[in-house]
Amino acid sequence: MARLVMKFGGTSVGTVERIKNVARKVKREVDAGHEVAVVVSAMSGETNRLVDLVSDMSSLHDAREYDVVVSSGEQVTTGLLSLALQDLGVSARSWLGWQVPIKTSAVHSAARIEQIDCSEISKRFAEKQVAVCAGFQGIGSDNRITTLGRGGSDTSAVALAAALEADRCDIYTDVDGIYTADPRIATKAAKLDKITYEEMLELASLGAKVLQTRSVEMAMKHRVKLQVLSSFEDLPGTLVVDEEDIVEHQVVSGVTYTRDEAKVTLQQVADRPGVAALVFGALADANVNVDMIVQNVSEDGKATDLTFTVGQKEITQALSVLDKLKGEVACKAIVPDSDVVKVSIVGMGMRSHAGVAKTMFAALAEKGINIQVISTSEIKVSVLLAEEYTELAVRTLHTAFGLDAA
Amino acid sequence: MARLVMKFGGTSVGTVERIKNVARKVKREVDAGHEVAVVVSAMSGETNRLVDLVSDMSSLHDAREYDVVVSSGEQVTTGLLSLALQDLGVSARSWLGWQVPIKTSAVHSAARIEQIDCSEISKRFAEKQVAVCAGFQGIGSDNRITTLGRGGSDTSAVALAAALEADRCDIYTDVDGIYTADPRIATKAAKLDKITYEEMLELASLGAKVLQTRSVEMAMKHRVKLQVLSSFEDLPGTLVVDEEDIVEHQVVSGVTYTRDEAKVTLQQVADRPGVAALVFGALADANVNVDMIVQNVSEDGKATDLTFTVGQKEITQALSVLDKLKGEVACKAIVPDSDVVKVSIVGMGMRSHAGVAKTMFAALAEKGINIQVISTSEIKVSVLLAEEYTELAVRTLHTAFGLDAA
Repeated sequence: MARLVMKFGGTSVGTVERIKNVARKVKREVDAGHEVAVVVSAMSGETNRLVDLVSDMSSLHDAREYDVVVSSGEQVTTGLLSLALQDLGVSARSWLGWQVPIKTSAVHSAARIEQIDCSEISKRFAEKQVAVCAGFQGIGSDNRITTLGRGGSDTSAVALAAALEADRCDIYTDVDGIYTADPRIATKAAKLDKITYEEMLELASLGAKVLQTRSVEMAMKHRVKLQVLSSFEDLPGTLVVDEEDIVEHQVVSGVTYTRDEAKVTLQQVADRPGVAALVFGALADANVNVDMIVQNVSEDGKATDLTFTVGQKEITQALSVLDKLKGEVACKAIVPDSDVVKVSIVGMGMRSHAGVAKTMFAALAEKGINIQVISTSEIKVSVLLAEEYTELAVRTLHTAFGLDAA
Repeated sequence: MARLVMKFGGTSVGTVERIKNVARKVKREVDAGHEVAVVVSAMSGETNRLVDLVSDMSSLHDAREYDVVVSSGEQVTTGLLSLALQDLGVSARSWLGWQVPIKTSAVHSAARIEQIDCSEISKRFAEKQVAVCAGFQGIGSDNRITTLGRGGSDTSAVALAAALEADRCDIYTDVDGIYTADPRIATKAAKLDKITYEEMLELASLGAKVLQTRSVEMAMKHRVKLQVLSSFEDLPGTLVVDEEDIVEHQVVSGVTYTRDEAKVTLQQVADRPGVAALVFGALADANVNVDMIVQNVSEDGKATDLTFTVGQKEITQALSVLDKLKGEVACKAIVPDSDVVKVSIVGMGMRSHAGVAKTMFAALAEKGINIQVISTSEIKVSVLLAEEYTELAVRTLHTAFGLDAA
């Protein structure tokens, strides 16, 4: 007997039929003797509908009321899935965030889970009852509904798995696992059987949309064994595990990309100490997250180009911050560019293999792809390219690092 | 300064624009210095959509999960209206049933309000904050969401008004008050300025759909002054008040009808003691509500016809009960008839005026309308007619009792 948390996203519970399908999957685990908690998202499209209602109502909305409106989506799914399970003869009940309770910070719309009291749910496991929990929501210290931010249901599932000391947290989704690259682009991409937390974390934050970054962080911290698998097919998925659980590491486990980057170049900015601190200090004060940074060495020691990237959604905010700095930071021009893509390679094996970056740059150069900005960490190398090269770059790197399926 | 409860039904909050309109109405009362609690229904169509989801999922559904799903509709409206009020500069927050809390019995889907703790809401009145409360929902002793049954938001509003000791409970709806008859049928129907609780109660239970019967009962019990008025026009509505507040009573205040009746006749049933007890006992045991009953005197002392009416929805259940009684209650045939209408006249003045029933029967007879069953109370007379006479009967009685507008 194992204790499992099963999480189903919006597409997996998008219709009455699909919820019935989810119920059958849950029943199978119950019939196998397992204790099961299920975490569900809102039916697909529902959260967007609710967010649109809020936006139509008020542009500068109170996050507390936003949470009241938007959390109703998950509430509906918990009730419906409980009914579907009962119809199959499985004892089940719904649990809303405030009922469990899942206590969070009171930062509405972006709350963090602080504590989950699983005593009631655990007690009912002994009575063979399935707990159907609303993802994405909790209760703040103000006794009001909070939400965790978009995609927060993954985090709910991992947090619940940690609190319940579950043997595994299965994240059911519309893909059947983690791939070496986006299969829509790299047709030779292969599904990974296992991947480390560290690699998954890099992949998630570098564009792979399968798991929310925060949920991977939390899984890593609490050593929750994660599995990503398909809601629609009966196939094993990808296990996200400790480094020790993988015998031999690939140098590169995956190639990923994100178009959610925008580049800003300050041309001919004065090359003197304190300029970078001024620019990035002001951006940080305005809550603009800067990702990659590059500053050329100036030829004359007087002026240089300063380039950095921010999320696409933050570009307007970033430009307005820079505009206010004009008096202090003189430059020839501020040039924004949204037609860029960040392509990354990720792999634990990189740490022990020299020359990975060289292989990457050479492979791209051979295809005539110009690299605009580079950033690296212990287990990843990211490059910023013109967006038009996205597919070519992903396929080229996938082949260069020997990831193409046989 | 007064303390007001304002209730808005589904049509009044059916779109973002209409919710903004509601917010303007609330702001006007706040600007006039009043303390305001608002009770809202789900946006029109939303409750039906949610009920359909539940029905599609499970035919014999767990009422607790039904409540979880269906109560989400009101939740959305409370958040949206709070946002709309804030946008107008009015301090407001949403209150769900479990937050107030509105404590109910644990009879899910048909819960009764037991206690409302208004201390938090009252405290915020002092800070000029409007309380936007979800109608139709509460919390049971099992710490789970309950709902009050369809139309329960009226009851929520009246209960809240009683608990808050409000000066008035305004029920905003898509009609502008209580009429002497359905204006779609009786074009000469007039709006009533005032009506007594007792009359309103009869009208509500006899087919007038403006107010839920239970809410009128509760208003009468707690002496909550009710007003029914339009969400869309700025006109005074109809006040529902104590008998003492009306100087002169009309003999008949209104004519109403309901097509939600079905007639069952047991032909040639044995005319001996205990038969009626057997039939109506069995129906009561099966939770079938019997409305009107008539039994003819038998000519030969051996057999007679027994006729009664039930709600349209209960006819199948009623026939199945009678079928099981066949061995004990012999009769020639059981004849159901759904093509009937119950037309009623209601008025406090009836108590002191003789001959009201006679006037009614004569007026109908003059038009050639046959009366099938009659039932009376102190302030109403109801007759069962063939459904095809509905409009003719309503108009005839409206004229006969001098209700036609000048």
